[in-house]
Amino acid sequence: MRYVSFARPDGSHGYGRLDGDMVEDLASPGAPATLKAALAAGTLAGQSGDSRLPLASLTLLPPVPDPGKILCIGLNYGAHIAEMGRAAGGYPAVFTRWSDTLVAHGAPMVAPGESSQFDYEGELAVVIGKAGRRIAAERAMEHVAGFSILNDGSARDWQAHASQFTPGKNFPASAGFGPALVTPDEVPDLCALRVQTRLNGELMQDQPVSDMIHPVAAIIAYCSRFTTLNPGDVIATGTPSGVGHGRKPPVYLKPGDTVTVSIGMLGELINPVVAEG
Amino acid sequence: MRYVSFARPDGSHGYGRLDGDMVEDLASPGAPATLKAALAAGTLAGQSGDSRLPLASLTLLPPVPDPGKILCIGLNYGAHIAEMGRAAGGYPAVFTRWSDTLVAHGAPMVAPGESSQFDYEGELAVVIGKAGRRIAAERAMEHVAGFSILNDGSARDWQAHASQFTPGKNFPASAGFGPALVTPDEVPDLCALRVQTRLNGELMQDQPVSDMIHPVAAIIAYCSRFTTLNPGDVIATGTPSGVGHGRKPPVYLKPGDTVTVSIGMLGELINPVVAEG
Repeated sequence: MRYVSFARPDGSHGYGRLDGDMVEDLASPGAPATLKAALAAGTLAGQSGDSRLPLASLTLLPPVPDPGKILCIGLNYGAHIAEMGRAAGGYPAVFTRWSDTLVAHGAPMVAPGESSQFDYEGELAVVIGKAGRRIAAERAMEHVAGFSILNDGSARDWQAHASQFTPGKNFPASAGFGPALVTPDEVPDLCALRVQTRLNGELMQDQPVSDMIHPVAAIIAYCSRFTTLNPGDVIATGTPSGVGHGRKPPVYLKPGDTVTVSIGMLGELINPVVAEG
Repeated sequence: MRYVSFARPDGSHGYGRLDGDMVEDLASPGAPATLKAALAAGTLAGQSGDSRLPLASLTLLPPVPDPGKILCIGLNYGAHIAEMGRAAGGYPAVFTRWSDTLVAHGAPMVAPGESSQFDYEGELAVVIGKAGRRIAAERAMEHVAGFSILNDGSARDWQAHASQFTPGKNFPASAGFGPALVTPDEVPDLCALRVQTRLNGELMQDQPVSDMIHPVAAIIAYCSRFTTLNPGDVIATGTPSGVGHGRKPPVYLKPGDTVTVSIGMLGELINPVVAEG
């Protein structure tokens, strides 16, 4: 199944199940009000909706617009570590985003006025469905509600201000997330998927998920040792090589650009880049 | 004024104004339900309560139990940078916590079962009262609702796993926060305050706020360039020298310890250390 969160034409928010170009509206009276709440209630798979809406009539939101925690894994593909001039470590590097950094598929990513080095990072995103602490790697996938795509937009100059990445990773509306939450049953071989990022149509990143240093189950196991993972939490699993910052000369995003991240059957996350309004 | 958040004897949550050993309960019907909501509504100073409760009858919560963002400044006192074997930079190092890491004054800080290097960090905490982006340093204090104390409990081994501090700073219930939110009018000279941390009564940290490399107004100005600060957001401004990790031999927290952080008229934040239950 594929789930989306959206704004209806009247501005109200909901979520639903994708069926071709229609959406079954699941946020009916009495049902959990948000996709995150439906995950927390454990009701999502069994919910049905009274109305079906044309996808084209809706404005997509990030699949989970309001994650309680967004964990981002840095430096999780060998070739990307090399291009960033860093060294591989035995543990994942974990930094965080706040939810006000997220924009939906189709919505503009805002190039920060403060940065001259705004960069894309195509990534596989994991959405937690079942809460857990100290989740064993072999049981980690039981805690996954599904997968999506995240463009971990990064102000490289601000990321390099100090040792911690927080400033470079938290400009408002700097990260694309979507288009949909795709349940694991639709993804028979996660590792065979390729993370592909195109800038104005040109292929910039193209690497299989199997190249991850810390695979999804290991990331969930590690992160759940130091924090409780809750329904709706998002883990961005790191970006492959090919980011703009690692090129010679570097390539940074500018208003008018379009970034497309595609990951096999997870779909395409397309975001135009705009200057701050 | 001094404000606290609390659980009443019946378990319900509220917040109120401290008056000696009594608390004026401000969460009356029709009023904002939480201290954060009252800050966001801009109503806190003008609110009055129908009932006065003995402080001793209440269980304190962190002054803001549910901050939307918790920003922590690392390496903001020169002597602490030296003891951690790091170098000073021109910009603040900013990492984050989630709110499930916070415990109130009097509540136990939980020594993580995964860590053998759990450490204290006494810090001045700033609570945002008025939202802002790109706040000029000279207007920064207009955005401050008040001050409090934070014990930025740190699992040093997990903090050192990789370049990013997130894992070492986010174990559940690892940070003390409180006792109260003290409004700026009660703090005529912030820089003259000393951050003092005592471990089982022994003075371990003792440095004036004026030793900060990046003072409060500069921190607010910097952070608000990359993120919108909202009412209830908390900024922990960094710890002075004297942490356990920097001692020879190192001193780490163990169950049965008591850590007391005092900062002049902001009061005392006292937390026992317990093993995981």
